[in-house]
Amino acid sequence: MQYRFADRMRCAPPSFLGRLFAVSTDPRIISFAGGLPNSGCIDVEGLADASRKVFEEEGHVALQYSTTDGYLPLREFISRRYSRRLGISIPPDHIQVVNGSQQCLDLVAKIFLNRGDPVAMERPGYLGAIEAFSLYEPAFHDVAFGEDGPDIDECAKVIRTFRPKFFYGIPNSQNPSGQTYSLERRKAVAEVLEGSDTLFYEDDAFGELFFDGRPRTPVKGLIPDRCILSGSFSKVIAPGMRIGWICAPEEILAQFNCAKQAADLHSNFLCQKVLSRYLASIDLDAHIRRIIDAYGHNCRLMCDLLDDSFPAGMSHTNPEGGMFLLATLPPGLNSMKVFEEGVKGGVAVLPGIPFYVSGGGESTIRLNFSSMDGERIKEGMERLARVIGSLL
Amino acid sequence: MQYRFADRMRCAPPSFLGRLFAVSTDPRIISFAGGLPNSGCIDVEGLADASRKVFEEEGHVALQYSTTDGYLPLREFISRRYSRRLGISIPPDHIQVVNGSQQCLDLVAKIFLNRGDPVAMERPGYLGAIEAFSLYEPAFHDVAFGEDGPDIDECAKVIRTFRPKFFYGIPNSQNPSGQTYSLERRKAVAEVLEGSDTLFYEDDAFGELFFDGRPRTPVKGLIPDRCILSGSFSKVIAPGMRIGWICAPEEILAQFNCAKQAADLHSNFLCQKVLSRYLASIDLDAHIRRIIDAYGHNCRLMCDLLDDSFPAGMSHTNPEGGMFLLATLPPGLNSMKVFEEGVKGGVAVLPGIPFYVSGGGESTIRLNFSSMDGERIKEGMERLARVIGSLL
Repeated sequence: MQYRFADRMRCAPPSFLGRLFAVSTDPRIISFAGGLPNSGCIDVEGLADASRKVFEEEGHVALQYSTTDGYLPLREFISRRYSRRLGISIPPDHIQVVNGSQQCLDLVAKIFLNRGDPVAMERPGYLGAIEAFSLYEPAFHDVAFGEDGPDIDECAKVIRTFRPKFFYGIPNSQNPSGQTYSLERRKAVAEVLEGSDTLFYEDDAFGELFFDGRPRTPVKGLIPDRCILSGSFSKVIAPGMRIGWICAPEEILAQFNCAKQAADLHSNFLCQKVLSRYLASIDLDAHIRRIIDAYGHNCRLMCDLLDDSFPAGMSHTNPEGGMFLLATLPPGLNSMKVFEEGVKGGVAVLPGIPFYVSGGGESTIRLNFSSMDGERIKEGMERLARVIGSLL
Repeated sequence: MQYRFADRMRCAPPSFLGRLFAVSTDPRIISFAGGLPNSGCIDVEGLADASRKVFEEEGHVALQYSTTDGYLPLREFISRRYSRRLGISIPPDHIQVVNGSQQCLDLVAKIFLNRGDPVAMERPGYLGAIEAFSLYEPAFHDVAFGEDGPDIDECAKVIRTFRPKFFYGIPNSQNPSGQTYSLERRKAVAEVLEGSDTLFYEDDAFGELFFDGRPRTPVKGLIPDRCILSGSFSKVIAPGMRIGWICAPEEILAQFNCAKQAADLHSNFLCQKVLSRYLASIDLDAHIRRIIDAYGHNCRLMCDLLDDSFPAGMSHTNPEGGMFLLATLPPGLNSMKVFEEGVKGGVAVLPGIPFYVSGGGESTIRLNFSSMDGERIKEGMERLARVIGSLL
């Protein structure tokens, strides 16, 4: 039988992820292509303990249906942390729990985008966002992304010309570049948006992971009514629980709630309870210090290796945090070729290509430095240097 | 600022659920309006034990990112159970795990429906499906639903005239009516669809809950290539874990996988592991026998009370399974009025209204018999009888 799929399915970008996953489960291959937090940084015992208590003391409740907006004590924790750490006031009823912040990408697109509606994002921009938005058939308008954030002239022009429904960006340790908006650039973006009817969609998956432990000013703090802010426990606690959140003005959150209820009623309540107990039982700042120590060490190691042990003509970003850096290949090399040859040489990288909505990425590769330890990074980077050397 | 929401948000039906939830958490009100499985039927200790083992033996893996399709041993369990219990062959790679079967409603609509596309469903039909589908702005075509299933003449006419992308139905203990398709009606529906290019979307949330423990022939077994089948652990194990699944032909599943990945990457991996271990450790048939004994008892009690203790002019369906029955009010009474007065009288019912896409439901109320024990059902039904009596 001939199946009659919706037109939107033709807009799905070709997915690298199936291929990537096959690669990442092959033990012969060292993969810098994925985006996993370090398993050693997951506090299995602490979470086991919290889980045990939830089952013992409130199992029947935790295993039942719950509300769409999410477990209130968890939202209160998030609210308090914003206040204490970033100095911004986001009441718990402006926060909703989702299945990892990827779900925000889907639902924000769902509540705002008609087919053909304009959306702005960074160039290069986050692959997961491109995948989620694409299924709503928008018109993408990308803005060059550099060392200090998006190009302001281009941003202003795109917003003036196309009136995008929202500008999606990752101010902290952007994916794929690893680069962070400067304070000046945050203010400039906020100013541009303030004179428009375009929202800022601030994806903050990595804001807790600055190697210096110092928070950066959220755009949400500058233009609260014009900003949707999403966060995630995947990077600092555990991705397998699929718990993230969104913060948005009340009117937006009401629509988001409606879409979330239609999408899956509510997020896993058991894990919300476990996470809430766990967070109440630990020193989260100390836990995060261990993570950023490890990631900072790995990032410096990878940058040093790129500087010292690779063929001339390579360059790379210098992340202040997060889990990724973006390397630019020597002139003439193609990122897909490096991927293909890398797999043969026992190392996987992510070509820059899927991070572009209008072409590009042939000269860049994204490298993950969070998921493995230093020895394996060294071994993988040696393989990669050999592969790139052999292609020159 | 004026927010520019997508047109689809205007298609969201007015949600009863917020109001309902407020009612269901008020301890003074006995609520038949919700759809909770009985908390006493959730095996908290068994799940706690499975959870403990997952944390001890494979915590680091269970807490990491995983694949979009879902945990293979869990899909293998589902596959084996279909084979053993229903005699249908559905290989694990035709099954994907989702966040409760509500997510199937969203994603099936997403992969099939362009704005304005025709969709067929039962009249009355499941409220959660109406909410999910509505956001894709389809043209609904409803088919009268009676004691033995959908009206076949109307079904054939709707399919011939409008060529719906799919016909959504609940053959086992339909929601809201509690009624079950007869075998003849299943065959007739399959035959009608076979001559068309309309798929059958078989929502089987309740197929394990027939009071006689006897399985009914799935439509999926009759027209496998033309049928999408969804299932859920929410009713037999625990809804708070949000684990359901979809079975579909390979080509459909590939599109579904693409939509699922964009929607939230994958379902809670920790709970998939816990559930998989739990299912391997118990006698599921014995567990389900305890549930259907309780629900069968409650259903008979509720039917008897409706027959014996209510004003004349009431009638009701006689479910063979599931969690709901549908009662028809005495002539002249309005279901919204019964809801409003019921809340004042300490009992909540769900008006039939949100189960209709083209008007109706003013004379019916859905009553849940799964969530509470017999004593509370008696007390609640006494209150309801008083409210209805006072309105006559």
